[in-house]
Amino acid sequence: MKWKRSERLVDMTYYLLEHPHQLIPLTYFSDLYQSAKSSISEDLTIVKETFEEKGIGLLTTVPGAAGGVRYIPKMSEQEVKHIIQELIIQLGQSDRLLPGGYLFMTDLLGNPDFMNRVGKVFASVFAEQQIDVIMTVATKGISIAHAIARHLNVPVVVVRRDSKVTEGSTVSINYVSGSSRRIQTMVLSKRSMKSGQRVLITDDFMKVGGTVNGMKSLLEEFECELAGIAVLVEAEHADERLVDDYYSLVKLHEVNEKDRIIELSEGNYFQKGRL
Amino acid sequence: MKWKRSERLVDMTYYLLEHPHQLIPLTYFSDLYQSAKSSISEDLTIVKETFEEKGIGLLTTVPGAAGGVRYIPKMSEQEVKHIIQELIIQLGQSDRLLPGGYLFMTDLLGNPDFMNRVGKVFASVFAEQQIDVIMTVATKGISIAHAIARHLNVPVVVVRRDSKVTEGSTVSINYVSGSSRRIQTMVLSKRSMKSGQRVLITDDFMKVGGTVNGMKSLLEEFECELAGIAVLVEAEHADERLVDDYYSLVKLHEVNEKDRIIELSEGNYFQKGRL
Repeated sequence: MKWKRSERLVDMTYYLLEHPHQLIPLTYFSDLYQSAKSSISEDLTIVKETFEEKGIGLLTTVPGAAGGVRYIPKMSEQEVKHIIQELIIQLGQSDRLLPGGYLFMTDLLGNPDFMNRVGKVFASVFAEQQIDVIMTVATKGISIAHAIARHLNVPVVVVRRDSKVTEGSTVSINYVSGSSRRIQTMVLSKRSMKSGQRVLITDDFMKVGGTVNGMKSLLEEFECELAGIAVLVEAEHADERLVDDYYSLVKLHEVNEKDRIIELSEGNYFQKGRL
Repeated sequence: MKWKRSERLVDMTYYLLEHPHQLIPLTYFSDLYQSAKSSISEDLTIVKETFEEKGIGLLTTVPGAAGGVRYIPKMSEQEVKHIIQELIIQLGQSDRLLPGGYLFMTDLLGNPDFMNRVGKVFASVFAEQQIDVIMTVATKGISIAHAIARHLNVPVVVVRRDSKVTEGSTVSINYVSGSSRRIQTMVLSKRSMKSGQRVLITDDFMKVGGTVNGMKSLLEEFECELAGIAVLVEAEHADERLVDDYYSLVKLHEVNEKDRIIELSEGNYFQKGRL
């Protein structure tokens, strides 16, 4: 069957979006569509220009026999600003206030469309870095970790509080929880990572940074390297902060339980600039 | 700016893929691209035919003033078969064998590309059903739940073993774990679901079905309805099974720890037929 350009464009767009950060040889498309490489190149130019125009992402071309094309998800700054504003409005609703000054965020973490966009924000930041693994801690960080992972095409590993038989052999560490100063335990399946891998740590919420710091210690046990830290919300605790090099979308300043006011602002995403 | 058809096709494909199961008015596209509705209709016919030809999914059109177009992710039977075969090969590797006859599956659950495809399999099965929520239990079911949710455009709720301050008020139930016959507890944030919602339950592994049964009891507490059950792997325990109406991709027959042999076969997916 001979494909028309219009059909090729639809199918190619689908295929590229489903395979982010993967090098796809031009022969894959020319064989699939029974078309000359020159036609495929023209198709890809149209896709590339539209992706860039609309802030969908980049198509990078690697020349030569071992070359091909690669889709890099990239979000426009305007869209990131929009997501941050949405998050500030959502999290500022007074009915999210929980006893002890905590915020209810579980609904946002369970919203697949919102998580998909948050994942693309962080995948954009780390698009040019070598990332081999995304690490998070159970339970609430998992949806963010998977959302980032899908856009970077790398696996997710989940650190747990307790060891389970289904995890096989595990490595366990003790760490000091930042806010309560209690000793806590973290375990990770031994098979999760290989030494030398570069790891992006992510979580939904960071207070002093004790949990993130615990994950950093785990990286050392696995002889892995920290590639970056991405959190959805950071709480203002700068003086006691255990972690300094991270990206956050939103900063939680103050929670006034009496008047039921939640004060939020933009996180450090734009201050840090793109990598 | 006036858009060319080729550019519209690329952008439209992207937009539709990012908004599964959402009704998009034709005016959205005609305004965005500054094009006549008749041109947009022609574009959508091309997208629709390519999506169907390639087994990407369906585009359904709702006529009239309140109408529009909707992308329904649907996987071809051939691709489902391919995923099941891949899963059987992967899970049959003898180094997955853990003490007690358990299988190590964490790496598959952390693979975003594989999870995305598994999510599309189950989203295809339940595409014509009214699903309001996907429910799973922490920790291992979360990646499957989110993968399905993304293709159905519905939220995920995560049942936990313990109550956390960040969940707010919770509903808690006791249930009998199927295999060990121990009494266990499950909790779910009260805000997670509204009465009357239709819920798809999912998990990575089902033995006797105690955990799934526990989630069914939780549904009753919330006055919600069971819409379906989807598990990645079921273990052969048909005689004692507590749950009967479910979809599985793979069935685990026997684990021979001595000879390190894992026996697997296709689950009930194709026997049950599409809904």
